[in-house]
Amino acid sequence: MGEEPVTNELLPGCSVTIFGATGDLTKRLLLPSLYNLAAGGFLPESFRLLGVAKEAWDDAKFKEHIASTLKEFWGADAKEETIEWIISRAGYQAGDFDDAATFTAVKEKLDALERGSGSVGNRLFYLAVAPDFIGGIAQCLGAAKLLVEGDGFWRRLVIEKPFGHDLESAKALNAELGKSMGEGQIFRIDHFAGKDAVQDLAVFRFSNAIVEPLWNRSMIDNVQITVAETVGVEKRASFYEKSGALRDMVPNHLAEVLSLVAMEPPVSLNAEHMRDKQVELLASIRQLKPEEVAQFAVRAQYGPGTVAGKELPGYREESGVDPHSMTETYVALELQIDNWRWSGVPFYLRTGKRLSEAVTEVVVTFRQPPARLFPAASEVGPPNQLIFNMRPKQQIELFFGSKRPGLRTEVEQSVMCFDFPEGPFGDHEKGYERLLHDVMMGDPTLFQRADFVEAGWRMVQPMLEAWSVPEQGGEMPSYASGSTGPAAADDLLAARGHKWHSLEQQ
Amino acid sequence: MGEEPVTNELLPGCSVTIFGATGDLTKRLLLPSLYNLAAGGFLPESFRLLGVAKEAWDDAKFKEHIASTLKEFWGADAKEETIEWIISRAGYQAGDFDDAATFTAVKEKLDALERGSGSVGNRLFYLAVAPDFIGGIAQCLGAAKLLVEGDGFWRRLVIEKPFGHDLESAKALNAELGKSMGEGQIFRIDHFAGKDAVQDLAVFRFSNAIVEPLWNRSMIDNVQITVAETVGVEKRASFYEKSGALRDMVPNHLAEVLSLVAMEPPVSLNAEHMRDKQVELLASIRQLKPEEVAQFAVRAQYGPGTVAGKELPGYREESGVDPHSMTETYVALELQIDNWRWSGVPFYLRTGKRLSEAVTEVVVTFRQPPARLFPAASEVGPPNQLIFNMRPKQQIELFFGSKRPGLRTEVEQSVMCFDFPEGPFGDHEKGYERLLHDVMMGDPTLFQRADFVEAGWRMVQPMLEAWSVPEQGGEMPSYASGSTGPAAADDLLAARGHKWHSLEQQ
Repeated sequence: MGEEPVTNELLPGCSVTIFGATGDLTKRLLLPSLYNLAAGGFLPESFRLLGVAKEAWDDAKFKEHIASTLKEFWGADAKEETIEWIISRAGYQAGDFDDAATFTAVKEKLDALERGSGSVGNRLFYLAVAPDFIGGIAQCLGAAKLLVEGDGFWRRLVIEKPFGHDLESAKALNAELGKSMGEGQIFRIDHFAGKDAVQDLAVFRFSNAIVEPLWNRSMIDNVQITVAETVGVEKRASFYEKSGALRDMVPNHLAEVLSLVAMEPPVSLNAEHMRDKQVELLASIRQLKPEEVAQFAVRAQYGPGTVAGKELPGYREESGVDPHSMTETYVALELQIDNWRWSGVPFYLRTGKRLSEAVTEVVVTFRQPPARLFPAASEVGPPNQLIFNMRPKQQIELFFGSKRPGLRTEVEQSVMCFDFPEGPFGDHEKGYERLLHDVMMGDPTLFQRADFVEAGWRMVQPMLEAWSVPEQGGEMPSYASGSTGPAAADDLLAARGHKWHSLEQQ
Repeated sequence: MGEEPVTNELLPGCSVTIFGATGDLTKRLLLPSLYNLAAGGFLPESFRLLGVAKEAWDDAKFKEHIASTLKEFWGADAKEETIEWIISRAGYQAGDFDDAATFTAVKEKLDALERGSGSVGNRLFYLAVAPDFIGGIAQCLGAAKLLVEGDGFWRRLVIEKPFGHDLESAKALNAELGKSMGEGQIFRIDHFAGKDAVQDLAVFRFSNAIVEPLWNRSMIDNVQITVAETVGVEKRASFYEKSGALRDMVPNHLAEVLSLVAMEPPVSLNAEHMRDKQVELLASIRQLKPEEVAQFAVRAQYGPGTVAGKELPGYREESGVDPHSMTETYVALELQIDNWRWSGVPFYLRTGKRLSEAVTEVVVTFRQPPARLFPAASEVGPPNQLIFNMRPKQQIELFFGSKRPGLRTEVEQSVMCFDFPEGPFGDHEKGYERLLHDVMMGDPTLFQRADFVEAGWRMVQPMLEAWSVPEQGGEMPSYASGSTGPAAADDLLAARGHKWHSLEQQ
């Protein structure tokens, strides 16, 4: 609220073409986000929307789909005129993603849609498709000359993770994309980066002079990054069986958060300067030897259990999952960052499904004061903790010691808290608004550069290799659905004298 | 609430003798505080209370006075059994404070009161009297052998400020007291030190490892200590005319707060270790030359004005005030602390009567970050400020920069806040409970040692001298009642590129 739209003057006219326009991502996130941008006046008058998919829909059917999707989401709040604004600018092209004819048709359709719009030919292609299609679509777009930029107009490609399934395949994908377009045209989207509370990690660190003197190995005891989900595999078994928690979360989302927490100050806010430092940080992570994996990494699979009073099956009993599946649904890692700032400070990462609480947070625990002058009123943890919570709340908490009121001079643990104010889209925010807007504005800061993606995979490659050896187990450690994860993850920290921050939210 | 009383096991039995038992301080603060301690179980069974004053009262009249005082304060909340507990232990002795016979009578009365109480002879003498009487009473107590400690019992004297009226008289008073007792028997009370939020200045600094790296000249831009009152001189004109804002507030209350904010970490919490560092801090304050006073200090007197919609007279029109009075009711100082930690950081102190708000606070403003990476969403002050508020709220606020929610990456000033929880006496707390309890427990940490008092006076001595020169003005700068103080105080800071923190409370 209160932010003036930058629309017509600043935002260049452009069209958005969604490959996979009939799919789930488009329905759940892209259309609602475009609606929010349109309702807020953040889209240009010459905006056009082209849906592409194999379903034999026509323009009318796609417009109907847009309208019903948006009405379903916003219910009584849906603004008729915004929906009208979007569908009056929308078209649809049916076709297979591996058929050159589809792309010729897309080109013609775009030309037709843009005619008379005042468009200068800026085109955004959003690949909301299964990962296997990405390389092919990029190649076809290239072959159809849809990716050739010119004097005063741009062509940009947005792709969703997974960016490959290991280091080698990620390199191959980057190389393949590179054949059809420049790195500057590729926007690898990570929806984590679209959250204000994630972006604030950098803003908090670099706009407050008081942070830097505290942000190093002398002051910080350990850092924990948690992405805990309560949901299970849901309907994603066919994808998830080949992925698992490590691939699905760590080289992308957790690497993004980790890099913002731990990076060196950038030269400027310029996208390359920012991303240089993020990549440098990932490059500073100590590479594990395969034989060290067992010592620094824990994986596990959820078993049956009770979540919110409901009995739920274990992962191996889920529909679409191999009853002998060796896919992990939980992973915990200890990382060491070998640079001047962080040497010796453990960074603990954990993520898992079917845990007791849905929590995304960064917990920075500071060292104890060098002398304990004041007696503690009660046995509490370390007094200084800075917690960045991104889910379920969006807030920052600072734990500190203060005098317990009363006749004695004793310290008790206290907390001060900052709740992020509501953004311009309030509760309706989908998290893709900022990112879509940034692509249109040509700001790649929040998107993962090729070398970031590769550094992310390099970080997890030893685990991928160690865990892919079939004779390595057969038995996968498990944890009960609704629990806080496997005992081995607690042991990992206990061995270092540490403890996971409680998933329970105050 | 929730603090277990330390009463019978830990607190030594003792009697409390109040000189000035019929006076205002006794009525407003001492009796209510003793009531609170008694109601909370913080007084020993063998507690006895002796009132001494020149009024020709007897025990019954004093008991009646206690009962009516307490009932008046607590109204329906007054606990009959607590009042009964106190008055059953109380006695009264009439007499002049400069008459040796009074002290013989006090001795006999105390012996009688304590008989059968299980007392071992611990006696606390509280001088709630005009400053002129302090030396004499101490001498008489000494002459009557009431201050001689013995094997297993103590004798302690509590005195109220003013401790002298300048450096020389303070030294003389300390020397005089020293003739009758050891420094360890003298408890110079500063009710500021009794507040949890003031004690927390030390607890916050020394129980949180994150504070020390920020607490120095590299990180801090300036520190402001404000004690602003809305009241005028009230009924204290005869005292205040000889004192003024500088004497009344700065060498004692403001010096106490300043020393806690700026002191070096003490060796331990031991009272001498703590007070050593407080005194060291005061000793590090750059001594002004008389000719520098005009450049670093501002004084002023309140004129007529409107406070809360009410027209009020200026200081010179107040009853009991000389119409040509040169007594200041406002003072603002810039202090420089010449040590490794603070060199070059201005400490601004201000205090005054009849200001727009009643505020006691310490505002620590940090430097700007070395590089401004993020654009500011709006023109705001420095992002990092730590504010210790002791009045009207008891809270700590931390101002910091965070991402303004929305499509742009902009910083806005945000705040997180900690409100002190309620103490064991809740709203009824009078602020003397902790201090009285500490005297009984023999803990002098929160009391001002002789050298502290002298260092406090030394700090203000150049102003006292410069401002006592009669031909220096005749005209006293003035400020309107209900304003934020004289323009000259704003100019003092403006000349250094600084601004007073707004007295308006959010």
